[in-house]
Amino acid sequence: MPALNDFDEFRSIAKHVNNWGRWGAHDEIGTLNLITPEVVRAAAATVRTGRRFALGLPLQQFGVQTGLIPGRVNPLHTMVALNWEMFGPGAIATSDDVVTMGLQAGTHWDGLGHVSHGNRLYNNRPADATITAHEGATYAGMEKIPPLLSRGVLLDVARARGVRRLAGDHAVTPEDLEAAEELAGVRVGAGDVVLVRTGQIQHYLGGDRDAYAFPSPGLSYRTPEWFHARDVAAVANDTLTFEIFPPEVDGMYLPVHALHLVEMGMMQGQNWNLEALAADCAEDGSYAFLLSAPPEPFTGGVGAPVAPVAVK
Amino acid sequence: MPALNDFDEFRSIAKHVNNWGRWGAHDEIGTLNLITPEVVRAAAATVRTGRRFALGLPLQQFGVQTGLIPGRVNPLHTMVALNWEMFGPGAIATSDDVVTMGLQAGTHWDGLGHVSHGNRLYNNRPADATITAHEGATYAGMEKIPPLLSRGVLLDVARARGVRRLAGDHAVTPEDLEAAEELAGVRVGAGDVVLVRTGQIQHYLGGDRDAYAFPSPGLSYRTPEWFHARDVAAVANDTLTFEIFPPEVDGMYLPVHALHLVEMGMMQGQNWNLEALAADCAEDGSYAFLLSAPPEPFTGGVGAPVAPVAVK
Amino acid sequence: MPALNDFDEFRSIAKHVNNWGRWGAHDEIGTLNLITPEVVRAAAATVRTGRRFALGLPLQQFGVQTGLIPGRVNPLHTMVALNWEMFGPGAIATSDDVVTMGLQAGTHWDGLGHVSHGNRLYNNRPADATITAHEGATYAGMEKIPPLLSRGVLLDVARARGVRRLAGDHAVTPEDLEAAEELAGVRVGAGDVVLVRTGQIQHYLGGDRDAYAFPSPGLSYRTPEWFHARDVAAVANDTLTFEIFPPEVDGMYLPVHALHLVEMGMMQGQNWNLEALAADCAEDGSYAFLLSAPPEPFTGGVGAPVAPVAVK
Amino acid sequence: MPALNDFDEFRSIAKHVNNWGRWGAHDEIGTLNLITPEVVRAAAATVRTGRRFALGLPLQQFGVQTGLIPGRVNPLHTMVALNWEMFGPGAIATSDDVVTMGLQAGTHWDGLGHVSHGNRLYNNRPADATITAHEGATYAGMEKIPPLLSRGVLLDVARARGVRRLAGDHAVTPEDLEAAEELAGVRVGAGDVVLVRTGQIQHYLGGDRDAYAFPSPGLSYRTPEWFHARDVAAVANDTLTFEIFPPEVDGMYLPVHALHLVEMGMMQGQNWNLEALAADCAEDGSYAFLLSAPPEPFTGGVGAPVAPVAVK
Repeated sequence: MPALNDFDEFRSIAKHVNNWGRWGAHDEIGTLNLITPEVVRAAAATVRTGRRFALGLPLQQFGVQTGLIPGRVNPLHTMVALNWEMFGPGAIATSDDVVTMGLQAGTHWDGLGHVSHGNRLYNNRPADATITAHEGATYAGMEKIPPLLSRGVLLDVARARGVRRLAGDHAVTPEDLEAAEELAGVRVGAGDVVLVRTGQIQHYLGGDRDAYAFPSPGLSYRTPEWFHARDVAAVANDTLTFEIFPPEVDGMYLPVHALHLVEMGMMQGQNWNLEALAADCAEDGSYAFLLSAPPEPFTGGVGAPVAPVAVK
Repeated sequence: MPALNDFDEFRSIAKHVNNWGRWGAHDEIGTLNLITPEVVRAAAATVRTGRRFALGLPLQQFGVQTGLIPGRVNPLHTMVALNWEMFGPGAIATSDDVVTMGLQAGTHWDGLGHVSHGNRLYNNRPADATITAHEGATYAGMEKIPPLLSRGVLLDVARARGVRRLAGDHAVTPEDLEAAEELAGVRVGAGDVVLVRTGQIQHYLGGDRDAYAFPSPGLSYRTPEWFHARDVAAVANDTLTFEIFPPEVDGMYLPVHALHLVEMGMMQGQNWNLEALAADCAEDGSYAFLLSAPPEPFTGGVGAPVAPVAVK
Repeated sequence: MPALNDFDEFRSIAKHVNNWGRWGAHDEIGTLNLITPEVVRAAAATVRTGRRFALGLPLQQFGVQTGLIPGRVNPLHTMVALNWEMFGPGAIATSDDVVTMGLQAGTHWDGLGHVSHGNRLYNNRPADATITAHEGATYAGMEKIPPLLSRGVLLDVARARGVRRLAGDHAVTPEDLEAAEELAGVRVGAGDVVLVRTGQIQHYLGGDRDAYAFPSPGLSYRTPEWFHARDVAAVANDTLTFEIFPPEVDGMYLPVHALHLVEMGMMQGQNWNLEALAADCAEDGSYAFLLSAPPEPFTGGVGAPVAPVAVK
Repeated sequence: MPALNDFDEFRSIAKHVNNWGRWGAHDEIGTLNLITPEVVRAAAATVRTGRRFALGLPLQQFGVQTGLIPGRVNPLHTMVALNWEMFGPGAIATSDDVVTMGLQAGTHWDGLGHVSHGNRLYNNRPADATITAHEGATYAGMEKIPPLLSRGVLLDVARARGVRRLAGDHAVTPEDLEAAEELAGVRVGAGDVVLVRTGQIQHYLGGDRDAYAFPSPGLSYRTPEWFHARDVAAVANDTLTFEIFPPEVDGMYLPVHALHLVEMGMMQGQNWNLEALAADCAEDGSYAFLLSAPPEPFTGGVGAPVAPVAVK
């Protein structure tokens, strides 16, 4: 199996977008450093109407996972108490619940520990010594993430291309992003969180998990340079695989994951439901908003569920 | 065991604060209805410096649960893949994780399905038929909660009383809230989310889980009327039990839970770490802020973890 | 939806096979009372060659469950320590694992708490008050089961009918059991554990979970009377549904479950792999053996995994 | 931290008891090879009265684990269906349950993958490449274990020494085993499973988990040679740590684990409740019996729960 560095396309982009050392040898949060107080203030200033949009899918047994990724199980929600009269018959009754789930099973952020290549994680950490069965990510775990709240910008690629949703073999290119940016009428800048809409999640919302999973449109390996040039803080979209799958170049698996997470130190989000937000943006023409999307702070987590909220 | 309605103190307050039917017979979100677009706009307008504060505790095996509440287990985080070369030797490697946890084990919101008394839930729903082992909360489950983002106000009762933290037998009274409000220099109003600081969580942060759990300062049964009068949307604090425990009136267990969740339909949050936020508020004198605190949307959940963020 | 007691066929059989009170009003183990020391001695005496057969399926993520039964999840096996040097670098290293699974997900016993009809469990217990979210089965839980070891008898119905496996719509009748008994050359008697072979599990062993699940041959509602007449202690077979599914009589769902578990107080086993044992029995003509099949003693369990062993 | 091979005592014993290659380079079951059909026949022949003894502890939230071993969680048993009328109102109702637990949390067998030293597992396998987060034990996993049923012999060391239970600092020596063997009046031989009673589990049965855990009597590092000389198939006892803890030699941690699991390829069992069996043996003077103790066959498991049964 070829390594990613065996591909010229990958190697030269990796060199170009690499952020190792940019925020110091001990940095664990990568491009989230770009969310400055100024960016946060500007994000708050985008709020005009006070309308709020939930971008997370309900967490449930019939979630987006179909078993393709071993161990990444959909949420199993069980009750451990059911109107239980803890203090005796007749007294107040409590119900309590428990869940077992893959941290990346639903709407989530990939953490910087999620992916390595050539045994390297972001900031040149050795993957084998850094991610352990016992403690998970001992570096860049999800508990290290600062409150993830910034300006969000929706790049509605499907709409910019005039389709309800992109075809399964459509790789979202930098040109697609530029067209969507033009539609948005907003320039993506430093510290922004970019939400890329493909429409693919319509399959899941319509009840077809298999069609949602695969084949899937998604980011091309050429987009990380664009995000790098704009210095965005994070990117999320409405697909299971995030990047196009099957891959554009035969045998070059998950190059965008490697470029974002390992080379740039940039978190990426999957399974975000952008449908209602996109409809609203199309209606009022405003594609920038306050985005609050803090991952659950699992100690040692290499990913985490998030319940993102956009406010316009 | 006496029922809550056997206590005169409880019965008269319950009648006074009851919101059943206020937002219609089918309402499932109670006082969250009070977060209007106007409130959200005002919340965004509180942002001045862009400083952000994480109010959630890290989710980990050594969490706040000590086994007192059966089944409410601390997060067990395990790796299901560890730098796994899914596509063959040499190719990109992925790590993946899974968790088992009580939904109310860490920093969380109590949902409206968490508590019943006299077999009644909020809005007069029968508890036994509404919360089921199979589906959890079939009414007012956590997946129904709209994006929980509003103006937050910190009522630092410990500081207002001039102590580092309240004693274990201190019931926070309406008078305490008023004093803290005066210290804050902000009037709590409709749709606000109120954060009440006792300082009790210092025990946990210092490594003493047992001292954190019990005995604990917390809200008096007299405070719900105050929250009701101000029409707040939700209340959270920095304790495990939320209300004072052991209870103020012998045998009157968890009256605040019943008044908030059942009578008012108001969600309440526990195990919120308010220490850093409080220090900042004391320094700059600003006790109002944008608060983003959407619970993870578990279908049928009677509670859910949250990673709250305050922005000033 | 008709209740089971609405069907004449069911009602008359139920009356006939009912064991409520037979072993006292407080009995929690039903027909397992029939395994006497004499039966155990006779079981040990069947051992001639010392050959052992494992009848349990490996417990794994790709198990027999396909999602049809909500919450009954296949085993998710994860490592919590991986060659972990608990006592410091260079010292001994330990690996540890954790599982989440439905107790009835793989090769298992149905406990007496698994099924109720008309709100009744075995021995006339009210189902709603007896099986609770908080404690599970407060009566007849799996921790109450005495060591389940007795004489086993294989009734190879598929072989007796001269087929590799029974068709999906074949209901195993008392006449089938008699034919298989004649083939076995052994008379089934009091305290025996009967293993009924349909061959259906070949589908799963061949990789086709869906074909295994449904439609499935299995016991006819007419067989409980036969088991009752012979006073057998328990019955297990090599299917997911145990009884024929879809049911023989339209709308009469799971009558065998109700007759065995509720009326007779007889545990039943599913997903037992009888293939190797059956081949050996066919070869040497001996269909009786020592069977050891103690369920894992989960407190409050309504079912439990088992790793059954036959010894000839 | 010293490695085990830094200790002369360990190194010479390890060399002496090593079974690598004894059953071939591909063997995955070690001393279980010693359970021959002859041994099984002899085991069955020990059955005289038909009395059965359960040696497993109930699996429950208040189990033997106290949190000392990270991740090895006590069973969390939850209901996913509670008298659920799956086929509609009035029809038959089913209850279903799910568990999350450490595979070595209760009464269990340590598998050969549980321990390594110097990066070696039994039969000279490299530990790091063999035990993986993704698949667990890819060699000698619990699914490979043949039906574990043999002759059991109780060596009641506590009784032989005339005490109710051994003191917390008592290392069980070969001399202790010989004295108990003399008391038993049975010679331990090839293929036997030896149960060593210390009485320590009385602490747990009496409700004191902490006293049970530590300090604990247990096997001395000098006993593996005795087991090796007798060619026993497996050893189990009634303690949490199996061997004496804290260790006999300062810094020489878990030498018995390493000698049994790594050098000899011999499984060992912990948390076995031998009290009732021991009382019966003392009464009738018979210390040999049929022992059925098949571990649950978890694919890739490094340990597994077991519900052992002794039959006399």
